[in-house]
Parts: sequence; structure tokens; C-alpha cells
Amino acid sequence: MQLGMIGLGRMGADMVRRLTKGGQQCIVYDVQPAAVERLEQEGVTGASSLEDLVAQLDKPRAVWLMVPAAVVDGTLEKLVPLLEPGDVVIDGGNSYYHDDIRRGTELAVRKLHYVDVGTSGGVAGRERGYCLMIGGEAEIVKRLEPIFSTLAPGAAAAPATPGRTADKSTAEQGFLHCGPLGAGHFVKMVHNGIEYGLMAAYAEGLNVLRHADAGKHARDADAETSPLRRPEFYQYDLNLADIAEVWRRGSVIGSWLLDLIAGSLVSDADLKNYAGRVSDSGEGRWTVAAAIDEGVPTPVLSAALFERFSSRGEADFANRVMSAMRHDFGGHVEKPAAPSGSQQG
Amino acid sequence: MQLGMIGLGRMGADMVRRLTKGGQQCIVYDVQPAAVERLEQEGVTGASSLEDLVAQLDKPRAVWLMVPAAVVDGTLEKLVPLLEPGDVVIDGGNSYYHDDIRRGTELAVRKLHYVDVGTSGGVAGRERGYCLMIGGEAEIVKRLEPIFSTLAPGAAAAPATPGRTADKSTAEQGFLHCGPLGAGHFVKMVHNGIEYGLMAAYAEGLNVLRHADAGKHARDADAETSPLRRPEFYQYDLNLADIAEVWRRGSVIGSWLLDLIAGSLVSDADLKNYAGRVSDSGEGRWTVAAAIDEGVPTPVLSAALFERFSSRGEADFANRVMSAMRHDFGGHVEKPAAPSGSQQG
Amino acid sequence: MQLGMIGLGRMGADMVRRLTKGGQQCIVYDVQPAAVERLEQEGVTGASSLEDLVAQLDKPRAVWLMVPAAVVDGTLEKLVPLLEPGDVVIDGGNSYYHDDIRRGTELAVRKLHYVDVGTSGGVAGRERGYCLMIGGEAEIVKRLEPIFSTLAPGAAAAPATPGRTADKSTAEQGFLHCGPLGAGHFVKMVHNGIEYGLMAAYAEGLNVLRHADAGKHARDADAETSPLRRPEFYQYDLNLADIAEVWRRGSVIGSWLLDLIAGSLVSDADLKNYAGRVSDSGEGRWTVAAAIDEGVPTPVLSAALFERFSSRGEADFANRVMSAMRHDFGGHVEKPAAPSGSQQG
Amino acid sequence: MQLGMIGLGRMGADMVRRLTKGGQQCIVYDVQPAAVERLEQEGVTGASSLEDLVAQLDKPRAVWLMVPAAVVDGTLEKLVPLLEPGDVVIDGGNSYYHDDIRRGTELAVRKLHYVDVGTSGGVAGRERGYCLMIGGEAEIVKRLEPIFSTLAPGAAAAPATPGRTADKSTAEQGFLHCGPLGAGHFVKMVHNGIEYGLMAAYAEGLNVLRHADAGKHARDADAETSPLRRPEFYQYDLNLADIAEVWRRGSVIGSWLLDLIAGSLVSDADLKNYAGRVSDSGEGRWTVAAAIDEGVPTPVLSAALFERFSSRGEADFANRVMSAMRHDFGGHVEKPAAPSGSQQG
Repeated sequence: MQLGMIGLGRMGADMVRRLTKGGQQCIVYDVQPAAVERLEQEGVTGASSLEDLVAQLDKPRAVWLMVPAAVVDGTLEKLVPLLEPGDVVIDGGNSYYHDDIRRGTELAVRKLHYVDVGTSGGVAGRERGYCLMIGGEAEIVKRLEPIFSTLAPGAAAAPATPGRTADKSTAEQGFLHCGPLGAGHFVKMVHNGIEYGLMAAYAEGLNVLRHADAGKHARDADAETSPLRRPEFYQYDLNLADIAEVWRRGSVIGSWLLDLIAGSLVSDADLKNYAGRVSDSGEGRWTVAAAIDEGVPTPVLSAALFERFSSRGEADFANRVMSAMRHDFGGHVEKPAAPSGSQQG
Repeated sequence: MQLGMIGLGRMGADMVRRLTKGGQQCIVYDVQPAAVERLEQEGVTGASSLEDLVAQLDKPRAVWLMVPAAVVDGTLEKLVPLLEPGDVVIDGGNSYYHDDIRRGTELAVRKLHYVDVGTSGGVAGRERGYCLMIGGEAEIVKRLEPIFSTLAPGAAAAPATPGRTADKSTAEQGFLHCGPLGAGHFVKMVHNGIEYGLMAAYAEGLNVLRHADAGKHARDADAETSPLRRPEFYQYDLNLADIAEVWRRGSVIGSWLLDLIAGSLVSDADLKNYAGRVSDSGEGRWTVAAAIDEGVPTPVLSAALFERFSSRGEADFANRVMSAMRHDFGGHVEKPAAPSGSQQG
Repeated sequence: MQLGMIGLGRMGADMVRRLTKGGQQCIVYDVQPAAVERLEQEGVTGASSLEDLVAQLDKPRAVWLMVPAAVVDGTLEKLVPLLEPGDVVIDGGNSYYHDDIRRGTELAVRKLHYVDVGTSGGVAGRERGYCLMIGGEAEIVKRLEPIFSTLAPGAAAAPATPGRTADKSTAEQGFLHCGPLGAGHFVKMVHNGIEYGLMAAYAEGLNVLRHADAGKHARDADAETSPLRRPEFYQYDLNLADIAEVWRRGSVIGSWLLDLIAGSLVSDADLKNYAGRVSDSGEGRWTVAAAIDEGVPTPVLSAALFERFSSRGEADFANRVMSAMRHDFGGHVEKPAAPSGSQQG
Repeated sequence: MQLGMIGLGRMGADMVRRLTKGGQQCIVYDVQPAAVERLEQEGVTGASSLEDLVAQLDKPRAVWLMVPAAVVDGTLEKLVPLLEPGDVVIDGGNSYYHDDIRRGTELAVRKLHYVDVGTSGGVAGRERGYCLMIGGEAEIVKRLEPIFSTLAPGAAAAPATPGRTADKSTAEQGFLHCGPLGAGHFVKMVHNGIEYGLMAAYAEGLNVLRHADAGKHARDADAETSPLRRPEFYQYDLNLADIAEVWRRGSVIGSWLLDLIAGSLVSDADLKNYAGRVSDSGEGRWTVAAAIDEGVPTPVLSAALFERFSSRGEADFANRVMSAMRHDFGGHVEKPAAPSGSQQG
């Protein structure tokens, strides 16, 4: 099947490669001509402009946007006037599902179809395949199945779930029509919310392991410092790389994220390459916001989100408020940070 | 290699089966004669008493306890007098690592060796192998390697971690000597702490998905109820079984726990078989307690732990205190629970 | 000064009484004629309709809405056509500040002024006075000062803050012009978010005190139950009413909320009058949503919010997911709830 | 009544002053002779050694320790041999209640009595009085009542709780016999746990208010940064000092802590005097540990505790783990901190 791809960054280019390798035909465009050229050199058909892209596509056209969420609307503004009734626009990026509903409704007026696809897989997706969560009209999603099934990992990527009837849905192939407009990005949003929670759980646990030697370090014995009552219980020097590795086999907490952690720790046991300022790109926030709208408690997902905010210094003023209170009721004076070098983690 | 196994419950019996199948020789004992008989019918050598078990073992003996944490001390009281210098006791259950340190120190006086083994794998372990986190003296752990390597899943159970040198440790085979006395159960404790966090992350996310139809249900419009401002954004009827299934392939949140969730939802999409009273067996508590001792923040792991307490009604009095305050400052009267049937999740 | 009051519920009627007693003139209206009659019997001037109310007010009019957030827009729809340029509408209820901005902008087109007032004080406000957080145009807020200063508690209600220059703002009198449209309800929103956190802190602490006798109760000793290792440390029968009372004098945690708790516990030490289903009326949700928009971590405020959701059973499905996982990996079967009577709180 | 006071730091010296002013007779000692001299100059009787202190006291003696928790045992080691049956030792510091039980049991062997007193009030206590939470034998506590009632604020310090019978207990005077050995420090421990939660609630809320201008600051529009969707809703420049002040009168969140915040913000609106490294001195940790032992959920109290740990950099390694995962699955590169100056809070 033929597909136009707009946006040839990290994700977009690799998806084109996987589609091409899987026998689909891609016409590709990017605002950066070099990105187009790179794929042309691999035998993919490039387009020099949105007009050129649209002109090269058979009707009804299928155009996949793989651009940053912030530029989707700008791209649509230029693209939509070039399209004709029956054409399909697919947003495969990380759009907020509220935007999908708005955009899909606007496009429907022009008899254009809109499909939102939450795409998970990251840099490994080219080889492993992409997990696709899809929202939109059922018949349009059906029409695009050759694209989805080529991008997806396929059923063989995981053992069958016991009791599951294989032909019930396409979920086992790694792509799923979740519901109407926005449903794909809604499910992807929650997927990422869960991802935040999983990541934080591993990170916190590893931090506890890393400080299992706390009893070896003298702690100040002043009124500002809570003493470690039983230092004899914190005398372990644990090898986190080995521990992450051993958990990869047979344990209840095995996962792809754990595989990645094990890899990171092999090469950089102290993770010195990172400062620990953890970004968030929106989905975690939207997940908690949705939970609040629904009245559903998400203490773990929100704690994970807030840890990221705090890692970037956003709790600073709140912390100063607390220090000010301690000073004012108890005469407590802030302790300076431990001199660098004595800090271990 | 020869091993005495005490405790033939769910875990112990399956471990004996895996050991036997892997060519190790087990002599087995349980306070329930029927449990011993069951394994004898499978060709395993049974013992009629602790004395009988000890008598049948070659010296230096290796005896593995696979009994509830609460009865380890009672079992040791009877077992230890029967042993001789050089013998090894292995505690493979879910003991608190503080107890390992105490017990190991006591046994050392009698020139007995103590090895603590955190064992993960659950009911699937017999086939998949068990992930073993081990604490104790290095030479004793080395001596027991045939047992550990037979119980463990083996290197083939997961793809190699890129950059890792295979012969660096036994971690890749699924068992690891983590450190001195207690280190095995310390690592297993944190493993379970992480497990709580992972489980809660999935559970909360699925709950958000389940309530994605919140806009379809009329909400009361009174001063006690926060209205849903934008019901049009919560109109989705999502198929959680399909969503869990699609996430199993190619997504960032794939894991063994997710595999289990996918299986549960196939047969019982509403999980009606469960009341949602979630037990905890200690390790999650101990992980947070260790984090507090170390001064390490674990907001996600503790939120996950507290959700379990709340699921069992342990927040009730606190909730009543809040309702009482609301009544007293605002005249707010508690709303009764929605009639059963209108409740959806 | 003259004021029209629409909405004579709990709050509105008491505010009219305080205004009248303080020498201001109120014309009052409510959709329930009985509510109007009640105040007329106390000597207040009633109105039989919105038209009547508007007709009785001198120009430029000042009309205060004290109605549920959900009916503000409906009320404005009827009221606004009756007003004339220069008139002021005050929303003193619990509106979302987004709505203030929208409404104020709409009213400005008709040369009407809109003032949003976050009002705290509850049922005690009639005597103690109301804390007023105000948003809108400075000159209009200034014009209404006689109303605000009569409703507010006045400077004498609390000792002067050391170092504060008395004439800097009206804050010391208990009312404050916080900023432009919406600023009043924004500040009130965060006020309530803080309130949730404060309430939860007391409630959780009292719950810990209440269970200080945990060591007296036998706990099951099975694999599903974490044993209490040191029952000797949990042998206290604490009198919560006395403890709340003693904290009211000289302690760091004294507060008006604590005063209320002390009162509740006097008459009903077990708070049997409450089921513990804690409502939330929106501001706590909006506070956390604002924090997420701002990228500011609010782990305490969100934990407090989610406790309320959980108190109403909204975690149920998530809990069932966790029980299902425990069953599937460990063969764990849910324990039934303790028989009623053995439950202590 | 006569009392020996050991430990003349911030708290001890002020308590002596309040006792003396209230007509009680103090004999005082401190390891720093200068501290003794200071009080001698105010007319208090000093002692040059523990022996001297004990010699000057009438039998049965009452000796109050007001020393850091870490040196209580060392002091007792020297003091106890000097005492005689019937004498009473009072620990008024911040001891862990486990230690009270141990110490009281040891002293009982020598027929000495031990009373634990949790003391709240801070630097303001000299004037306001101290809130005293007391554990120990009833008759001994009774014997010390003149001391307690002089230190306590007295009934007039707060309005009577409606419905409360005045003579029911001493709670209304600001001191309370809570229960047997350790009960005083147990209640004080939870008091401080609550204090952490209250402080965090205010601090988080003020942080949300401080960032109410988030819409005025351009945010990066890249894949690492979640955009602020509605900047028009975050255009407020709020005066936190005025807001804290207005909340002091009539609002639901009025408290002594709020009074302190209002004072801090008057003189230093940005709290530039603080770095935001918030210490914790043990009670918050012990409260959460007790909650875990009891199986009582304390998500708010623990979130408040963990914020303090994080404020001191203790989440750093966990944050690096998260950044490493983001890099490995998504190719995400950490964003550097914003240049100083652009940072606002």
C-alpha cells in the first residue's frame, strides 16, 4: 500500500524504513531537504514540497504526520487545502487527544478523514516493530491495515496469551483500533502515564539499593539530622548492574525497561553521564489530568510525574517555605549541602 | 548435588521438581505427610521427620527451608541441634533480612553456615526457572552453585545485554551472590518493593482507561460533587483486554506483569472474581522502612504500599475525620454511596 | 452601601445577616420564596423576582451571586439583560477561575463589571467574618470596599504580623484584591487545595494514633499477612479527644481545623456518625490541575485529593487488577474482610 | 515545686525561665558552664556538676533532661548512679519512644521513675507556654503537675471547645498524661508527622501561587518540553505576603504555622535567605514507620517526608536512572538547567 510520510526525524525515518522493507510504498517529505535526501539514497521516493507529495500520491491518499505535537496544526494548515474528499490524514505523533477530536471534526467538514495513532517503540521500533494504538472511523482504520500490520511487531513478537482467541482482534499483531477520534492518543497517553510509574518504581528501588551502605558513612549527630539507629543493617556494597541483570531472568519484575536499565548500568554504573534532570513531554501530565476529571485516584502515577518536576528544581520555592517555617518556630538553621565528594548518590 | 528440602508448599514442591528434573538429588520433608507422599509418588526421596531428613543427607549437608517466614525460627530450633559443623542452612523464603543477620550469626557460633536466598518466580517458576538473589559467605555460595544454576532460568531465558561481558558474574544465568548475610533478602525485598510500584502503575492506568466513559454517566450537580466540565472528552468504551494485549508487543511498557494482566482480562474483563482487597506480605513495608532509614525518597513505592492498606479499609477512620471536619466548617453532609448497579468500577 | 444578594442558602443568608448587622443595606432574592421570606422576617428587604431585585437597586448597581457554581451561568443569562452599563456583578461562590475570565470578558462587552470573590469561612463566618479573596478591576473593587470590609473579620481577629506595615493593603482586615479577573477564585482554589492537604495530615496522624493499640490484636500469621514484628511497641489506648484538645494550646500544629476536630471528637469519639465517604467540590482538583500546568510538584495536595477519591470506592477496579496479578504470579487468594466487630477503624 | 534541669540550650533555658517566673524552683546544670552562668545571672540556682545538681535537690528528686536525643543515654549513664529510689527522671527532648520504654524499664529495676514528655512550642514557648504530651506512671505524672501546669499555656490560651466538660482532663490546660511509658513521645512523634504534612501543604500551595505567572514566560517548544496549552490562564502576579496575611483572618486554613509564614514573607518575599534544603529530625520518619507497622495508610505524611529528602538531593540517583531510561528507549537527551536568572522559583 502507498503512504505519504511527513516528518523524517528519528521516528518518521525509521518507520519509513520498516514500511519499505515490509513491501509498502512510501513517498516522503520533510522541511529539512537533507532528511529527504537521506531516505532517497536508501531508495525511497522523496518529495520536494507538500504539493509535490500530494501530487505523487494515488487517491484516496493516505498521509502520515510524524512531526512534533507543537507543529501539527501548522502542517495541517498547509496540507489540508491540497487534499480532496476521501483522503486520510494520520497523526502518529504525541498529540493531545483533545486536539484529535477538534482536528478530526474540522477535517470531516471537508470530507477528509482523520486517524490518530499513538506509536510506542522508540529507537528500537525499526527492528522490534511499533505498538500502535489507533483512533478514528472503523472503515478507514480497516483500509490502512496493511500499513499498520507492517509497522507493528506481529504476533510472533510475544507468546500467545493463554485463553485468548487469536482472531478476536488485531491486538495480538501489535496494533489496535481502540475507538473513535482521539481514542488512539488517549490510550497512548495512559500508556505513557503508566510508563512514568514503572520507570519511577525501578529508579526508586535502585536508589534504595545504592544506599544500602548508609551505615558505613558517619552521619552528623546534631539536632538537624535524624540519626541512623541501626547502622549494622546498612553495610552492603551492592552491584546494581549485576542485580538488574539477574532480575531479567525469572523474576516477577522483568520488563523491557529493566533490560534497558541493565544495559545502562553495564557501561556507566554510577550513571555519571546524566545530571538527573528528567523531562516530561506531556502525556504523564495529561494522564493525571484525565484521572482527576474522571475522579480516579492515581497516587503512583502522579508521584512519578511530580518527581520529574522536582528533579528540575520546581520544588525549590516550596522547600524554602518549609525551611523558613522551621527557622521561625524552632530556630532551625539550614544545613549546607555536604561538600562534593562526600555525596554519594 | 544433594539437597534437603523442608517445606513442600506451592513453591517448595515445584522447586524440588525442577531440581530433580535438572539432575539434582532431593530429600524432602514437610510437616504435612501428604505433601511428602505426593513427591514420593513422583520418585523423589521423602523423609518422615527432620531427624530422618538429616540422617539421609551426606555431609557436609545442605538443607533448604521453604517455609512461611513466621515459622523459620521454630523450624531452625528443631533442625539446628541435628546438624554438624560445616553443614549449610539455606532460607529461600521471604524472611526479613534483619532475621538473616541474627540467624546467621547464631549459626556461625556452631560452625554452621547460613545462606539467604530471595526467590522470585511464583507459580510459573517451575517452567521458567527462579530468579535467585543470594546472601552469605562466598565459598559456601560457590559450593551450592549446582543447586542455584538448576533452579535459575539460565542465560538463554533472555537476550544478552549489549556490552555485557558474559563471564563477569552468574547474573546472566539468573542467580547472583549479592553480598554477605542478608544481602539476598535485602535485594529481594527491594525487588518486591519495585513490584508493588509496577503493579500499581498498571492498575491505576487501567482504571483511568476503564473510566474513559465518565462523560456518558450523568453526575449529580450539587455542592458536594465536582462536575465533569467537558463530558465530550470522556465518551470512550475501551476494551481493556485488547489494550493490554496490544501493549505486549513493541511498546515501552511490555513486561511479564503485563502478560499476566492480559491473561486475567481475557477471561474476566471486569475482574469480578476479585473484591480488591490487596494483601501485602511484608517486603513492600520493609522496603519503605529501609528507604526511610537511608533517607532515600520513595514516593511511588510508598504510594503503592498505602493503596494496598486503603484497599483493605485501613483509611476508614482518617476518612471519617475528614468528613467530620467538612461537616463542622461547611455544614457538608456525606453523600451516600451510589446504589449498586450504577457503580461501574 | 447597598447590595443585591441572589442566593440565600447557608452562605448567602448568613452573609446578608452580617452585612445588615454591619449597617449595609441588602435587597435579597432566591428562587425559593421561603428563603426570601425568612430574611424578610428578620427585617431585610426581599425581592420577588430578578426584575424586582434590579428595580429596587440604585445605579450603578452591585449584585452579589451566592449560588452553586453549576447555576451561575444560568442566573447570569437572566440577570445580565436587566442590568445597565456601570453595574457590577460579584460572584462569591466557588466558580472555576476559567469561568470568571470568560464571564468577565463577556460582561465587559456590555460595559458591565465582574468581580470574583473567593469566600472562606463556612458556617462560622456569620460570627467570625469571611476571608475574601478578590479578583477584578481595581477601581470597582475599591468601590465595593464597604461591603468587603463588613463581611471580613477585621484586623482585630488576629494579632498583627510582626514587621508588617498596617496600611500596606487591606489583607489585615481579611479581604484582599488579589489581581485581575479570576485572581480571587484562583487564590481561593489554592486555599482549598491547601485545606485538603491540612485536613489529610490531621486525619492520617489521628489514624496512626488510633491504631497505637495494634499490638493488642492478634494478627493472622499466614503468607498473605505481614506480621507485626514488635507488638510491644503498639500497646497504647489513646484518647484522641484529649490529644486533639491538648494540641490546641502551645503546639506547632494548632489551627482552626484542629479546633473543629477537637469538637467533633468530644461528642463522638469514634466518629460513628460518618461513613468516611469524603466529597470534593472541585477546588482541590483544579489546584492539582493548575500545578500540573505550571509544572509545580504537589505530591501532598494530590495525595490528599486522591484519598478522597479512594474513600468513595474509585480505586476499586485498580485494586482488583492488583489482586488479579497477585493471583496469577503467586497463586495468592484474596483474604475476606475481617468480620464486622473485629474491625476497629 | 522543685525541679532539676539538665540541658540549658534554646529550649531548656527558656523552660527554666518560664518555670521560675511561674513560681517553681529550678536547679540547673549544663555541660557548658557559660549556659549555667547565664541563668545564674537571672537569679536561678546553678549546679557545677551532676553530683552538685543531685546534692542540691530535695528527695524524692525530679530531674528534667532537655538534651539532644543522641546524648540522653550518655547523660543517664552518669546521672542514674547518683539517684535514689523514688527519684524521677523526665526526658523532655525528642527521644524515640522505643528508647523511653527501654530506659523506663531499666530505671524501674532501680526503683527510679521515668516520665517521657513530648514538648512542642519552639522558640515562642517561653511566652506562649509549651504543649506537653506525657507518658509514664499516673501517680508520678500527678506528682509533677505543678511543673507541667506552669510550663503549659493554660486554659485561657484558646477558647473552650464546645461541648467539652472542663474538668475531664488536664488537656485544656495544655498538658496531658497520654498513657504509659513512651506514650508522650509517641503522641509527640505523630504531632510532628502531622506538622510535616501541614507545612508541606502550605508550601506546595504557595508554590502554585508563585507560578501563577507561568503563562508570561516563553517555554521551549521542543519534544522534551510539555507546552503550556493555555498561557492566558497563568498571567497572575500574586503577592504572597498579602495572601498569607489575608488567610489569617476568617479562613478555614488559619493556623499558627500560617502566622509564621505571613511573617517570613513580609521581610523576604522570595525567601532568598533559604536554599531550600529541608532537614528532618526523626519524628516524621518514625511516624511513617509506625504507620507501616500498624498497616495504616499515610500517603500525605510520607509525601511530605520524602519532599524533604528530595530537597537535600537524595533523589539524584533515581533521577539519573530515569534519564538513562529515557535516553535508551527514546534517544532523549537531558536538557540543561535554565541559565540562572531565568529561574524564578
